[in-house]
Amino acid sequence: MGAGFAGLEATKALAASPVEVVLIDQKNHHCFQPLLYQVATASLSPADIAWPIRAILRNQRNVDVMLARVLGIDQDRNVVRTTAGEIAFDYLVLATGATHHYFGHPEWEKSAPGLKSVEDATRIRSHILMSFEAAEVAHDLQTQRYLMTFVIVGGGPTGVEMAGAIAEVARQTLRRDFRHIDPAEASIILLEAGTRLLPAFPEKLAASAHRALEAAGVDVRTSAQVTTCDQGGVVAGGKRIAAGTVIWAAGVKASPAAEWLDAPHDRNGRVAVNENLSIPGWDNIFVVGDTAAASSGGRPVPGVAPAAKQMGEYVGRLISARIAGNPANAPFRYRDYGTLATVGRRYAIVKLGRFELTGFMAWLFWSVVHVYYLIGARNRAVVALNWFWNYMTFQRGARLISS
Amino acid sequence: MGAGFAGLEATKALAASPVEVVLIDQKNHHCFQPLLYQVATASLSPADIAWPIRAILRNQRNVDVMLARVLGIDQDRNVVRTTAGEIAFDYLVLATGATHHYFGHPEWEKSAPGLKSVEDATRIRSHILMSFEAAEVAHDLQTQRYLMTFVIVGGGPTGVEMAGAIAEVARQTLRRDFRHIDPAEASIILLEAGTRLLPAFPEKLAASAHRALEAAGVDVRTSAQVTTCDQGGVVAGGKRIAAGTVIWAAGVKASPAAEWLDAPHDRNGRVAVNENLSIPGWDNIFVVGDTAAASSGGRPVPGVAPAAKQMGEYVGRLISARIAGNPANAPFRYRDYGTLATVGRRYAIVKLGRFELTGFMAWLFWSVVHVYYLIGARNRAVVALNWFWNYMTFQRGARLISS
Repeated sequence: MGAGFAGLEATKALAASPVEVVLIDQKNHHCFQPLLYQVATASLSPADIAWPIRAILRNQRNVDVMLARVLGIDQDRNVVRTTAGEIAFDYLVLATGATHHYFGHPEWEKSAPGLKSVEDATRIRSHILMSFEAAEVAHDLQTQRYLMTFVIVGGGPTGVEMAGAIAEVARQTLRRDFRHIDPAEASIILLEAGTRLLPAFPEKLAASAHRALEAAGVDVRTSAQVTTCDQGGVVAGGKRIAAGTVIWAAGVKASPAAEWLDAPHDRNGRVAVNENLSIPGWDNIFVVGDTAAASSGGRPVPGVAPAAKQMGEYVGRLISARIAGNPANAPFRYRDYGTLATVGRRYAIVKLGRFELTGFMAWLFWSVVHVYYLIGARNRAVVALNWFWNYMTFQRGARLISS
Repeated sequence: MGAGFAGLEATKALAASPVEVVLIDQKNHHCFQPLLYQVATASLSPADIAWPIRAILRNQRNVDVMLARVLGIDQDRNVVRTTAGEIAFDYLVLATGATHHYFGHPEWEKSAPGLKSVEDATRIRSHILMSFEAAEVAHDLQTQRYLMTFVIVGGGPTGVEMAGAIAEVARQTLRRDFRHIDPAEASIILLEAGTRLLPAFPEKLAASAHRALEAAGVDVRTSAQVTTCDQGGVVAGGKRIAAGTVIWAAGVKASPAAEWLDAPHDRNGRVAVNENLSIPGWDNIFVVGDTAAASSGGRPVPGVAPAAKQMGEYVGRLISARIAGNPANAPFRYRDYGTLATVGRRYAIVKLGRFELTGFMAWLFWSVVHVYYLIGARNRAVVALNWFWNYMTFQRGARLISS
């Protein structure tokens, strides 16, 4: 259950098997999370990166898509309890993803929203655009400065991409749209608790992204752990920063699968799984994607889209094989094809094995890869067209404030 | 104030005048209302038909766009009171549009939403798509039938377009997406209180649209006035229809400009205006667009987009001329270039003077006209691409349920 990257791949891998697949998700759409930040910064529309689950799986006749929320799991009876009633299973694949993690301060969520769903993205988009509108009609400089200060917490790929995109909105897109404020004077502050950005990348690439962000007008502060977060802004590294917008990109926590299963989990709530991604004691229950604390060759599997897809596909094949009477049991192996991150327009960093790339060529590569992986030819064409448009004009097509 | 068709045209007509224009709107975007129904039926994304007001007017340096809501008008002091403070004026142009009219039953709005804004459209889209999802997991036939009954109240262009589009969603787009229901069995019922559809069109064209709707699977009922409207459905012509979705397309009421001005108005709240669109007693205050009860050559000016644009442009030029010391005072004349309405894919009716057209050619004409009038080349390209895509595949790109 769960129609993210992992759940969809598992479902597809079962297409040829004589099984009935029930795919449960609380949304009607699959969302291409790696591009959510572009919705939040008004480059793309939600429908450009989201696709109805039913349409994706229309031709796979052994799938029954259910829009419902999971309430709990009863392993002993082989039953999932959902808002649409109980569902019996022979095999269960949990791919329910992750949500934001506020490190023991859930009250921060109100003033520092994170970016995990289409709704999060449109809410953040409205908030960013409204800040400039409110500053335009504000009567004193201090209020204007507060409204035009944007803090992004967390120096991973999401934080870096958001900071770069907001800087571009302020310095390019909105540049000539206001009469009483200069959007280019906005402060965009990226806070990272660790000593450097992008810990998943080699130091040299991370340093290059750091320089590119500063060149784009982002104030990057490392070793700046956030200790308070409220309507007035944040306290980071002991210093208060007054900011009208705070965006959380600092950590994720798995969905409550571990609670449903009453299973052991790590401090981020991810379920500890066996080598074949089943959970200890139940060889017909699997956990995949961001919900699983898996390892491959002794190293933890990262919480990225390609890993989720690989886990989903692995489990789908495993179940297929078992049903065909072939209890193959090679452990899951994560193949790392590389890592990408982008900084505003025309700058990205790419690591593919030993091959490293920065700058404009890396950005072109990033664009091609992301367009390629979008589901649906129509979405690919619309996204490519929007990006080409943005690139040529600095304009953004989706600057809507709506509730 | 107001950045609909009328307000924008008035603003543009003042571009070359030595004036300061303050354009007040409660939204940050101009919305192309004639295509809202396509957002409500998941063909287009909100950003495809809405455009930031600031971006439209970026190069007109004498305009100051303010995101604010009007609270009242003080004519004697020449001041508009808004949520962003008081604004003084020499000339005032009111172009604040219209909203739904429930004929004395405002409580109907809750169960029968109308379609006037981007938010209305996304809410209706979620509601329609959720009805099929809920029917898929419903356990009894009666509930399924209730959820899959869609009533559209009002046989004007909006009602006809909505009914045709919902029929297409049910019979084409969703056809193979469900396992427990057949979306093609949905009932789409169009209710009109009068004796025929589309009273603004000649009888022959309206009858042709009527037949096209029935061929598309819409149950058209004329002389069926709605007397009750609640969560369970509607009572029309004395008969109860159980329906999970009721959409209101039966009437509009002007924004409260008449109250702000304490001015005479008709029963739909539209302000009675002089021949030059000023209000009696105040030659520096004008009312245009759907907020005005104007007449041209003894006939009332209809509440359609071209009329709103012409009124806006007329007043903009009038003020320009007056400021230049040229008190031109030719009365406003509405030029009727024709009327269009569309019924699902491939069928439309067109009236241009004496020239009448129905069917596929009319639909092609309708498509070209609407793409042409969309603001912004990017939107034109994306809408054209989406339509081409829909046409070829019966798919709809924007099938998102979100809050």
